[in-house]
Amino acid sequence: MSIKAGVVGAAGFAGIEAVRLLAAHPSFELSAITSSELAGTRLADVYPAFEGVSDLRFLAHDDSALDECDVVFLAVPHTAALKAAPGFIERGISVIDLSADFRLKDPAVYEKWYKVPHTQTELLSQAAFGLPELMGDELAAVAARRAKGEAVLVACAGCYPTATSLAAAPAVRAGFVREGSPIVVDAVSGVTGAGKKPTQRTHFCFADANVEAYGVGTHRHTPEIEQILGAPGRVVFTPHLAPLGRGLLSTVTLQLEADAPSDAAAYVEEYRRAYAESPFVSVLDAGHQPRTASVAGSNRAHIGLAISEPAHMLVATCAIDNLGKGAAGQAVQCASIVFGLPQNAGLAGVSLSV
Amino acid sequence: MSIKAGVVGAAGFAGIEAVRLLAAHPSFELSAITSSELAGTRLADVYPAFEGVSDLRFLAHDDSALDECDVVFLAVPHTAALKAAPGFIERGISVIDLSADFRLKDPAVYEKWYKVPHTQTELLSQAAFGLPELMGDELAAVAARRAKGEAVLVACAGCYPTATSLAAAPAVRAGFVREGSPIVVDAVSGVTGAGKKPTQRTHFCFADANVEAYGVGTHRHTPEIEQILGAPGRVVFTPHLAPLGRGLLSTVTLQLEADAPSDAAAYVEEYRRAYAESPFVSVLDAGHQPRTASVAGSNRAHIGLAISEPAHMLVATCAIDNLGKGAAGQAVQCASIVFGLPQNAGLAGVSLSV
Amino acid sequence: MSIKAGVVGAAGFAGIEAVRLLAAHPSFELSAITSSELAGTRLADVYPAFEGVSDLRFLAHDDSALDECDVVFLAVPHTAALKAAPGFIERGISVIDLSADFRLKDPAVYEKWYKVPHTQTELLSQAAFGLPELMGDELAAVAARRAKGEAVLVACAGCYPTATSLAAAPAVRAGFVREGSPIVVDAVSGVTGAGKKPTQRTHFCFADANVEAYGVGTHRHTPEIEQILGAPGRVVFTPHLAPLGRGLLSTVTLQLEADAPSDAAAYVEEYRRAYAESPFVSVLDAGHQPRTASVAGSNRAHIGLAISEPAHMLVATCAIDNLGKGAAGQAVQCASIVFGLPQNAGLAGVSLSV
Amino acid sequence: MSIKAGVVGAAGFAGIEAVRLLAAHPSFELSAITSSELAGTRLADVYPAFEGVSDLRFLAHDDSALDECDVVFLAVPHTAALKAAPGFIERGISVIDLSADFRLKDPAVYEKWYKVPHTQTELLSQAAFGLPELMGDELAAVAARRAKGEAVLVACAGCYPTATSLAAAPAVRAGFVREGSPIVVDAVSGVTGAGKKPTQRTHFCFADANVEAYGVGTHRHTPEIEQILGAPGRVVFTPHLAPLGRGLLSTVTLQLEADAPSDAAAYVEEYRRAYAESPFVSVLDAGHQPRTASVAGSNRAHIGLAISEPAHMLVATCAIDNLGKGAAGQAVQCASIVFGLPQNAGLAGVSLSV
Repeated sequence: MSIKAGVVGAAGFAGIEAVRLLAAHPSFELSAITSSELAGTRLADVYPAFEGVSDLRFLAHDDSALDECDVVFLAVPHTAALKAAPGFIERGISVIDLSADFRLKDPAVYEKWYKVPHTQTELLSQAAFGLPELMGDELAAVAARRAKGEAVLVACAGCYPTATSLAAAPAVRAGFVREGSPIVVDAVSGVTGAGKKPTQRTHFCFADANVEAYGVGTHRHTPEIEQILGAPGRVVFTPHLAPLGRGLLSTVTLQLEADAPSDAAAYVEEYRRAYAESPFVSVLDAGHQPRTASVAGSNRAHIGLAISEPAHMLVATCAIDNLGKGAAGQAVQCASIVFGLPQNAGLAGVSLSV
Repeated sequence: MSIKAGVVGAAGFAGIEAVRLLAAHPSFELSAITSSELAGTRLADVYPAFEGVSDLRFLAHDDSALDECDVVFLAVPHTAALKAAPGFIERGISVIDLSADFRLKDPAVYEKWYKVPHTQTELLSQAAFGLPELMGDELAAVAARRAKGEAVLVACAGCYPTATSLAAAPAVRAGFVREGSPIVVDAVSGVTGAGKKPTQRTHFCFADANVEAYGVGTHRHTPEIEQILGAPGRVVFTPHLAPLGRGLLSTVTLQLEADAPSDAAAYVEEYRRAYAESPFVSVLDAGHQPRTASVAGSNRAHIGLAISEPAHMLVATCAIDNLGKGAAGQAVQCASIVFGLPQNAGLAGVSLSV
Repeated sequence: MSIKAGVVGAAGFAGIEAVRLLAAHPSFELSAITSSELAGTRLADVYPAFEGVSDLRFLAHDDSALDECDVVFLAVPHTAALKAAPGFIERGISVIDLSADFRLKDPAVYEKWYKVPHTQTELLSQAAFGLPELMGDELAAVAARRAKGEAVLVACAGCYPTATSLAAAPAVRAGFVREGSPIVVDAVSGVTGAGKKPTQRTHFCFADANVEAYGVGTHRHTPEIEQILGAPGRVVFTPHLAPLGRGLLSTVTLQLEADAPSDAAAYVEEYRRAYAESPFVSVLDAGHQPRTASVAGSNRAHIGLAISEPAHMLVATCAIDNLGKGAAGQAVQCASIVFGLPQNAGLAGVSLSV
Repeated sequence: MSIKAGVVGAAGFAGIEAVRLLAAHPSFELSAITSSELAGTRLADVYPAFEGVSDLRFLAHDDSALDECDVVFLAVPHTAALKAAPGFIERGISVIDLSADFRLKDPAVYEKWYKVPHTQTELLSQAAFGLPELMGDELAAVAARRAKGEAVLVACAGCYPTATSLAAAPAVRAGFVREGSPIVVDAVSGVTGAGKKPTQRTHFCFADANVEAYGVGTHRHTPEIEQILGAPGRVVFTPHLAPLGRGLLSTVTLQLEADAPSDAAAYVEEYRRAYAESPFVSVLDAGHQPRTASVAGSNRAHIGLAISEPAHMLVATCAIDNLGKGAAGQAVQCASIVFGLPQNAGLAGVSLSV
């Protein structure tokens, strides 16, 4: 089976990672890549990694080549997906959206955090949230609809919400975390998370040898994490930028119920049970901590668990590649699920970390 | 006035930074540097930065040149300072200790975390804690004793405790932080914090492009932070390693009292009041976050303050150079105070961050 | 067809890269990995990238599991391959040697540069040099012998010789380079080239933010380059270390014959002709220069060509991944050729450079 | 003595380094800093390293505060210095020019390489070339003129020419290098050399983990090196970019005369003689190579010397900080010479390399 796929917004960092994954995918056939700014340019002239490997050129966003796709991946800024998605769905093309436009179930929450009206609430109500390990039912439901010939929409989870929720959800769902307690999330992302546009912040000479927090108390991934964890108003989220390209580590500190276990091994056991069917997630032995380098370039997530006493708090950490499991890898995983393929098709690669 | 200074353990990262600062200091005269492993070796052969600048050689730890010093800086592992400090004090030589041996006021706490008996409790009871911005009274007291001719001991604060306490103390002391609430500390250090010894962890190919947590729930700086903040059992401390040489950022999340202000500006004001007499501390305007690169190579600390609602928590961040304000810079600052010099003598340098 | 493969010395950087490539290879089946120091340890405990992906454990070098292999990859230090190779060959197991032991055709040259006797001159005389793009005939010859059931030995080219020769050979072979003129090679390698052993040199805090030359005039890859280019005594080779993990750029400056073309485009044309059958080599348009990041993690080589007038010299640059095309990728490529597979089997991956 | 100094173009990387050095200088008083784009902005808002240290604001280029200066440092792009310098000289203000506008003695060479007419040939003829170690006589001459009250102009050497000439000149001047032979220069610069403007090239995600050559055969520092070495048409110059902020290493390969010595020690001796009066230059022992990290942040230059036989070529390497000895440090050194101060005034700092 060959499923024709297009990537809209293929020149950005998440887009090009989707291109890389789809170009090597056993079942998807990458047939169109678009870029508003680079239409007409050879892919290999922008990303020389493809020199000698691909003759693709960036097309315009409205190129008719997209019409022949079975699925498009939208790697565009928020609000752009609001505009683009309906047309694809109408033409019978399923949409895997990497933007934030269809992630928040409540349009009011979207409007509060993104400061724009949500113009596609009908479509929003039908979208599946794309985080297979934690919201697999939604994906199964749209996969069933797609199997009947319907074009469907998946709103893939963001990078910070993916790592943070994978770290926190099993403890929350098992009832170990104190009701109503704050969920403190300190996360660190590589600079690819800041996007391809050259700015002072992404300049090597300012980003290198530097760590800083940003968007403290205001980052738009906050309500998304709260939605996944079912913890409205409880997430205190502080993202940081560190001098690496790919990689994201989320450190989540959770107040445990008084009667929750105080040995890390119990949590390791619980998490392994929770992720038993999730081939991309590894829960490390107690006493081990995940390294972002060990998952960079892959779709994998590594989780570490430790207890801090006497405060009786769980410190759960999760490392992912923000462009892999945090963006394009997850999108391909979701697309595979939607199209009835094994979820790890084309995603077997491991990190290059020596 | 020329005060003769020696550095014991000068070949390690904190030691060599003390050497660099003392070699350029207007009042201290660097007269002896020692290393157990490198005795006899030219300083410039180990650290070529000193090539053409200094003809110093590392001496043995027991070299008689130390006897002529007015002050020695101990940059040795813990327990080694326990052994070395008494002899210097007996010979009338003041000691600025960069190790952890005399930081914890309660020997039982030391023994619990360091797993060795504290053999110098008498000396411990007379030591000043070296964190001038928060524990200035102790330093003033030993400075007065030293002015009368007594040899005194300063136990300089550790790197994480310095950044964390500078970030948290004014809010705690002003009564803004809820009594008994956990103090969540997620901090990131550069690789110099892992020491000079080559290990797999400090190997470029494992440390580069990687972020990871370590020592979760067990790091020995935990009780030190609790002591400074007067918050026993409340600190949940998760240190991380990131791919930079120098630099440390501590992100502290504090549960505010219900009636504490909810605008960051109020905290900025309070912190500026608290640090009005502290020339090395800058409290940034609300909405700004400190960058480790902007303090690397200096003795400065930059603090950022933000509020996360509706959880009503303060996120206080502090950036320092772990070898500067977090080790050797602070040691020189303390030494200056002890010897009646301006505390910023020899410490005016700013970061090289372009 | 499944060909059983083993990796001897699998814990080093070249070895683990071979493991990564063979584990995902469509025709080789990775059945044994060995390490002298880590025998018994789980692969994933040393390289967490394999966590959740592989249950392999390192075996001892003499483990009988190797006996069942069709081919072994030797990723061991020089002289160790001299000792290990004959036994495998005798047992009918072909050997792909990543070490330097069988690269130099003349044992006297080996002995001069490596300061040890060459104890396997008979085997040496039968070995093929593993650089398919430039010495394809030797590989074809051993492939023919292997097809008849013989166990054969391939001595894969080193990292610097690979990049340097790919950059220089077409110009030399076309007669553009002045007879007897010096061949100036300045090359830069990432720190993986310095090996896995932690040393002061590979310590993050010494390797980061630093560039330095090393082994000037004495590096053992010098005679290997001279052998490939047929230019004894003419190579002036200066390797450098730069702060990156993977990646190697060789810049070769060649004195052109007076009547050789003076426009870069003529050389681009010649090089593209020379590499027309080489799927891993891309010759960039005149005016473009290769980036190591664009080939890191792949088996590809990118070549740039420019002319410097009035000195009438060709500056040819070649970027490879020192662990990929410079080591394990090349080894897998050679093994595929030897076993009659397409040379790019299992090597289609492109760089992760965003 | 307090000499009033201004920095024109203070917001760029060379400019801000001049600001940093002058702010801490014992004899110069930094009284005005200008920026065309950032006039009115606080210095500390652009470079937070100055937070709590300096209240300076960027002024417009034509601010009258410059009129009161004794000396201005021009850290502006080429052609801008052509326009700005004459006005300062006319007003009696000496000019230390960090741009390329007055470096090339022959206006025709300037026009050939910079593609614009040289509009200030009279001023050019009076300018001193600012490379004290090799062209000290020119500086002495303008210092004498300035001592008589004349405003003078110094054209500071560029970064690559400084490192390259320091590496090559003593051998060339001693007659060791074969007449007319090509001088092959492969040099590596950190990303600060690419300037402050954010571009794809300076984006962390493209610059990190990457080495590449650029400007091969066309870089404008080529004629400057040829001028210093008195070797017109002989320099083959290939600059490279590597993933570090500050630091530049130039590797120069020189064909020796047949009767020139073949042991490195002889060159070390000759170089030490040549630089005996140069406090910033260290010639390392034979067998040692300079590290850029060991000079970063300082005004120092480290030189390594090795011989490659049988080609009988000298490989001379020189490491500097491209913003220090390669730009602002050298400018301050030249200014000190011009104003009769010790040339190392304010430049005693050593690298922070641990």
